[in-house]
Amino acid sequence: MSYRIGIDIGGMSVKLGIVDDDFRVIERMRIATGMGCRCQELIADMVDACRQLGERYPVSSVGIGSAGLVDSQRGYVVRAGNLPFQNEPLAEKLSGPLGLPVYLDNDANCALIGEHMAGACQDCQDAIILTIGTGIGGAILIGGRIYRGHNGRAGEFGHFVFDRQSTRRCSCGLTGCFEEYASATALLAMTRKKIEAAPDSLLAVETAAGVDGMAVFGAAQRGCREAVEVLQEYARILAMGINSMVHIFQPEVTVLSGGISLQGDYLLGLLAPYLLPESVVRTTALEGNGGLIGAALLGTI
Amino acid sequence: MSYRIGIDIGGMSVKLGIVDDDFRVIERMRIATGMGCRCQELIADMVDACRQLGERYPVSSVGIGSAGLVDSQRGYVVRAGNLPFQNEPLAEKLSGPLGLPVYLDNDANCALIGEHMAGACQDCQDAIILTIGTGIGGAILIGGRIYRGHNGRAGEFGHFVFDRQSTRRCSCGLTGCFEEYASATALLAMTRKKIEAAPDSLLAVETAAGVDGMAVFGAAQRGCREAVEVLQEYARILAMGINSMVHIFQPEVTVLSGGISLQGDYLLGLLAPYLLPESVVRTTALEGNGGLIGAALLGTI
Repeated sequence: MSYRIGIDIGGMSVKLGIVDDDFRVIERMRIATGMGCRCQELIADMVDACRQLGERYPVSSVGIGSAGLVDSQRGYVVRAGNLPFQNEPLAEKLSGPLGLPVYLDNDANCALIGEHMAGACQDCQDAIILTIGTGIGGAILIGGRIYRGHNGRAGEFGHFVFDRQSTRRCSCGLTGCFEEYASATALLAMTRKKIEAAPDSLLAVETAAGVDGMAVFGAAQRGCREAVEVLQEYARILAMGINSMVHIFQPEVTVLSGGISLQGDYLLGLLAPYLLPESVVRTTALEGNGGLIGAALLGTI
Repeated sequence: MSYRIGIDIGGMSVKLGIVDDDFRVIERMRIATGMGCRCQELIADMVDACRQLGERYPVSSVGIGSAGLVDSQRGYVVRAGNLPFQNEPLAEKLSGPLGLPVYLDNDANCALIGEHMAGACQDCQDAIILTIGTGIGGAILIGGRIYRGHNGRAGEFGHFVFDRQSTRRCSCGLTGCFEEYASATALLAMTRKKIEAAPDSLLAVETAAGVDGMAVFGAAQRGCREAVEVLQEYARILAMGINSMVHIFQPEVTVLSGGISLQGDYLLGLLAPYLLPESVVRTTALEGNGGLIGAALLGTI
């Protein structure tokens, strides 16, 4: 049995785990990040966590999946949203002290590698993934390999023009980007709007103490009509984007990951009426561990 | 020197040509199609034309690029717009009588193969093409090979949702498809609208006898302000789609083909203000012969 460390760097925390040959996460750790966290301290914490894991398992490699813009060939995190990385040679900073090979890729590529090796598209050579969170990311599997484009930045499925009439400029340079309408952030905004419009609904009552992106699913499953309406409209919008990507890639499968995708069959049921016959959609089969598992497998595919 | 026959099947005519080892079209023929043309007669005409070409050159293979939906693996034209093909085993119908290998692919794939082997993206392994005509087609080159998707239908760059607010249903099943706003048909509609709004403009005067998709370029180059306005707005829209596909593929180059692309540097100048820095765009380098040359090269890459 061999053991690999996977590291999943997100905006709120760094998750680490030991992944075995059966692609199971058999031990895990977590480092909180957030405002004010410093780059070199965070790296020292990551080295320390890897060492702790390495004391208990004969680790053969470390793989890192990071949010933001990553140069996987050089092992650099170019920038990463809220995190304090700026052209940081992260792979080298870990491989030196650990004496292990360290691989780095972006989080969406890792999520797709995880699903391809151990999850929802194991049977596929051509697949795409939409990672739905604060924004929408994406990755592309072609012939069983990740396609990265000539600069490593391919797969930005959240950043095609979805509303040509919008004048709101995205940080990517375009207007009317798809993620503005179909991210978890967009679903939350839709939920808030409905709560305002229907203050007596179960959805409004249940979220009186605070609303998050998942609240609408709970209310819908308890029969709240307003919550179902929000989700049907969200599913219609998400399906328009999925169908668009299917026309471009004709993948065997389109995988959805991120918090919303954990709704599984319920989400697929909402999407079904709006999908084209050729749009074969599955939700993550790795319960939020896809990015970590995929990161651990970097260097093996 | 070896010689191959390329056949480019479009809605209005079938173009045939002999392509030599230097990717030049050294002899050509044309068969008119259009309303009322019959399938078996058209095939007999194609066989006849190939025989005539074969009498003058030692032809080693025949390649066909067809509009519409093509099953390149089986050599079938599934359907092809105005043309009388319905699940037609076209490759076999030509290879039998001619005694030559016959390859078949869709017209956009052929156009990209032509540009990759002999045209605007010879130096690239990862490239995409937008074929701009009545609609918008597309094709994808990854690692020097055409990516077709699992069902052979990938690359429909005209059919992603570009206007989420549109309710007009496209034959593809989506609403607000990109080609509705950026095809040559769309440019013609924009031109007509401007002529109506500015009946005294040079554009209106020059097109009094009839307007086609290219008229607006002529008027613009002769200084007509209204024509320039139409083209600037068209370029803005086309660039939004190009930028979107660049975010998805990050290709080395995006090639434009079709009638509008023959405007070359003038078109690129119009696009430039609206392109993202990473969007490297070139127009066809094969003067309308890309599809024919690419068809002739089928089976060689």
